[in-house]
Amino acid sequence: MSLESCKVVWTAPLKLEDAKWVKLVKTVYTDPNSKTRDWESAERCTRPAGVDYDGVGIVAILERPGTPPALLLQKQFRPPIGKVTIEVPAGLVDANETAEECALRELYEETGYRGEIADTDKSCLMFNDPGMCNTNLHMVHVKIDLEREENKNPQPQLEENEFIESFTVPLKDLYTECRRLEKEGYAIDARVGTLAEGFEIARKWRFS
Amino acid sequence: MSLESCKVVWTAPLKLEDAKWVKLVKTVYTDPNSKTRDWESAERCTRPAGVDYDGVGIVAILERPGTPPALLLQKQFRPPIGKVTIEVPAGLVDANETAEECALRELYEETGYRGEIADTDKSCLMFNDPGMCNTNLHMVHVKIDLEREENKNPQPQLEENEFIESFTVPLKDLYTECRRLEKEGYAIDARVGTLAEGFEIARKWRFS
Repeated sequence: MSLESCKVVWTAPLKLEDAKWVKLVKTVYTDPNSKTRDWESAERCTRPAGVDYDGVGIVAILERPGTPPALLLQKQFRPPIGKVTIEVPAGLVDANETAEECALRELYEETGYRGEIADTDKSCLMFNDPGMCNTNLHMVHVKIDLEREENKNPQPQLEENEFIESFTVPLKDLYTECRRLEKEGYAIDARVGTLAEGFEIARKWRFS
Repeated sequence: MSLESCKVVWTAPLKLEDAKWVKLVKTVYTDPNSKTRDWESAERCTRPAGVDYDGVGIVAILERPGTPPALLLQKQFRPPIGKVTIEVPAGLVDANETAEECALRELYEETGYRGEIADTDKSCLMFNDPGMCNTNLHMVHVKIDLEREENKNPQPQLEENEFIESFTVPLKDLYTECRRLEKEGYAIDARVGTLAEGFEIARKWRFS
């Protein structure tokens, strides 16, 4: 029983009328010359009414005196790509929930950790692939105090169909760890990979 | 005639058989307990045969003596979200083209700049939203020497249906600029927003 044993058995085209979680959309729009054009894209069906985003990605940094700050990551098999990914904890927002509430709830469910919202504001609303789909999220910054009693033996509260393994990487090692994990066969989620690129650019250019 | 005048006129569900650019996929897979489950997702139809990624995002840094290094960004109306986005230059890979070749070609077409591949390796293959779709890209690092004659008056080579405006932001200002542009009504692409978050985390934690 391991994530690495998960396998795609088969794939097939899915008709719109048979799909429950995703859909295709045709958009007719006007270009800067007022000419009418059309575009094809995909959407999730899960966004609550009246909410303008799908969910959150959680930048959870673990703090313990004497050890370097570390980023909480997780492994999860993702059927759309047929691989185990390296991701930040994340989840879809519920109706009547703020992004921060969503982040603390998902963090606890997926990892067992009780986090606190950090003093870095949540990110801009970020669009994952805006030429192809409307999916988007806020990154929420959370700190996890490992000295707190309730964080000494965290117990994830996973649903029956969720299989997630958590681990940590020191911030300073994220860039090299992403490359090492990719070589081992893991797929790197864009949030993790782009944070790592950002760290490397900041290191190289020393502009801050 | 401005990007900001573009508007969505209407949207409608798109049947699989009517879609040319995107599709829905059903995946049957085995979980870590060898139980068979299924998943719904979306894909682009444009990936060349035998290639394992869709395209590239281009981190193009402009260099000129006496000015701070700046990131090349662009504005583009994106019908799937009905907004003008702030993105890095990007594009879909052609068959028989490396990620680096794709990056230099797209950079020239979209911005008119002749870039050179930087000494930072291209990123890991990054998955944009792996629970929802298979779309992915490499980030390619490019430097643009503004002292080169051919970069003094860059002329984009846009197609008839492409409307893109380029601009630059000093790396050190990216985080605050993203927030300012979002307040003005622009949508922040995840590559741009996550790089900015990475810069801010590097600044705050000073781990590099």
